[in-house]
Amino acid sequence: MTSAKTVYNFCSGPAMLPETVMKQAQAEFLDYQSKGISIMEMSHRSDEFQAILLSAKARLRELMAIPENYQILLMQGGASLQFSCIPLNLTGSDPALYLDSGYWAKKALTEAQKYGSVEVLSVLEEHPEKRLLDVSVTESEHYSYIHYTPNETIDGLEFHHVPSINKGPLVADMSSCILSRPIEVDRFGLLYAGAQKNIGPAGLAVVIIREDLLSRADKTKLPRLLHYQTVLSEGSMANTPPTFAIYLANLVFGWLQEQGGVLEMERLNKQKSQLLYQALDQSVLFNNAVATDSRSRMNVPFSIDRNLETHFLEQAANHGLLNLVGHRTAGGCRASIYNAMPKEGVEKLAEFIKYFESQYV
Amino acid sequence: MTSAKTVYNFCSGPAMLPETVMKQAQAEFLDYQSKGISIMEMSHRSDEFQAILLSAKARLRELMAIPENYQILLMQGGASLQFSCIPLNLTGSDPALYLDSGYWAKKALTEAQKYGSVEVLSVLEEHPEKRLLDVSVTESEHYSYIHYTPNETIDGLEFHHVPSINKGPLVADMSSCILSRPIEVDRFGLLYAGAQKNIGPAGLAVVIIREDLLSRADKTKLPRLLHYQTVLSEGSMANTPPTFAIYLANLVFGWLQEQGGVLEMERLNKQKSQLLYQALDQSVLFNNAVATDSRSRMNVPFSIDRNLETHFLEQAANHGLLNLVGHRTAGGCRASIYNAMPKEGVEKLAEFIKYFESQYV
Repeated sequence: MTSAKTVYNFCSGPAMLPETVMKQAQAEFLDYQSKGISIMEMSHRSDEFQAILLSAKARLRELMAIPENYQILLMQGGASLQFSCIPLNLTGSDPALYLDSGYWAKKALTEAQKYGSVEVLSVLEEHPEKRLLDVSVTESEHYSYIHYTPNETIDGLEFHHVPSINKGPLVADMSSCILSRPIEVDRFGLLYAGAQKNIGPAGLAVVIIREDLLSRADKTKLPRLLHYQTVLSEGSMANTPPTFAIYLANLVFGWLQEQGGVLEMERLNKQKSQLLYQALDQSVLFNNAVATDSRSRMNVPFSIDRNLETHFLEQAANHGLLNLVGHRTAGGCRASIYNAMPKEGVEKLAEFIKYFESQYV
Repeated sequence: MTSAKTVYNFCSGPAMLPETVMKQAQAEFLDYQSKGISIMEMSHRSDEFQAILLSAKARLRELMAIPENYQILLMQGGASLQFSCIPLNLTGSDPALYLDSGYWAKKALTEAQKYGSVEVLSVLEEHPEKRLLDVSVTESEHYSYIHYTPNETIDGLEFHHVPSINKGPLVADMSSCILSRPIEVDRFGLLYAGAQKNIGPAGLAVVIIREDLLSRADKTKLPRLLHYQTVLSEGSMANTPPTFAIYLANLVFGWLQEQGGVLEMERLNKQKSQLLYQALDQSVLFNNAVATDSRSRMNVPFSIDRNLETHFLEQAANHGLLNLVGHRTAGGCRASIYNAMPKEGVEKLAEFIKYFESQYV
């Protein structure tokens, strides 16, 4: 049933999933554990799905070394619904601080401004090249929370350190970098991620929250499914959860454990991204516009002469290198190289970049 | 890969999906339209997924004969998130009226009470048997909207007519009866349904809304993904949609068209439910506690002597009749017989009920 041709899918999300995970999901798609029905057709309260839900949380806790005083919530609505949930649940009398690093940070802060006072601190230098700035000086004495976006998927910017503003709990949108490297969870108040990049299919979000932050919101005023304490007390089943997405996430977490966890992912992601940036830096036709210390290991945007762009994308696709088109707001090209992208895929892309250039230079 | 034994899955949701749909989804799980990757791994903005999204909406519009002045929204969070969206989007200066028919109606109205004035009218008679009442007298002159639950999944109650209160737009939670029979959409202001019963897997909700109701809510005050006008203006892609769930829904809609649409479904659902109620009514061991004119065609709850219940459920499972346990809040047994349940499954259950009884009576 698989295509004879090997292809590599550089889509930014929904993104490729590990091949062994997809094959297992296909094999048991009609018949889960010899029950004669799909996991998708079983009650979320069945023993089978409950085992999956517990396993997914336990595997994620182990992979990320999540301390006991943090809870894992599985929710719907992706990271975008968290843009609303976070201010609705965490805003107190103090303002919130949002670090503005670009497209996704702006999306998050625009939503937060609906619900309370928000201070915004730009952390993006645009010239001569794009760079994320370190920040420490802020106006307020204390913030309800401090939000930032560790990886900007579109511009290909990544913080390689945790901002050191100790004036409130740190909240991070880890949609496009979760599980790509070890992080110290206890430096954060809340972490969240849409699933469709490093976790599973679209339609699921993971929220990791320090327990003391659960009691801030008044449940009588919030939409029930947006209230963290309610989601927790119902065991992430305040309504019927997206069972198939959670089933796949659990398989991905298992695959990550087999690969050696986030330390091994970090090693590979460093290798993969260095390989690609090197190919781009050595070319005269291609360009990545991000300062070396702010380059993302997950999303590598690059430009090429506009007259050659379509031709490049077509030829790449013919070579099995798919979905290299940039975000519709940014144009250009982009390679998303999440955990599931094998090193061979990046090697093939780097080779193809050299080959393509050799036709013109 | 399928089990040799034929099984019938009476789960109330997530529920069984049509066999041909599941087989097609499995066959192209790793390789959609010879692209070498799964539809699950493609961008929601890809041509492939956009074709699916348009097809799903067009098929649903045709199946339900949805007039042009109604819009179809695909959202996350199931029907439960709609319990919040509806009052947040539709509440005006007038109160809302909720018809209380039991468990799910109560869930909806409890949520609505957070956001504005709600009048509640009980439409459930409990003795001597459960029955849905007709209503027409109400307190207010006009309501922001009037909400009811055409099918109560747990108690197995179904309205077989549309309530005739013409004092505001009618809003209906059709989660467990959508597409099971023809309905006159233009009698409603808004229809909604969680997908996991008659549409597809869990993690998706369908909202059908009359256009004049879209402009009521102030988008600057609502969570972005809960604002109907925003969801519409972004083409149901205000965030990354649950692409695989929509892909499956599109296949289910196609299957429904091939079967003959909602008229054929109604014919079959009448047959299936009559067969089962007849078996229950003819037995002395089993009982359905709902008045004939309020019985659901989708969910058939029944009781048996408590000493025999576990034995019945075990023996049924051994005969390939799965997931007949009642809702955790109601106890007893329940057979959910949505569109995807073939007539043979219900026949086999009716036969088994007679066979089981013959062992004891």
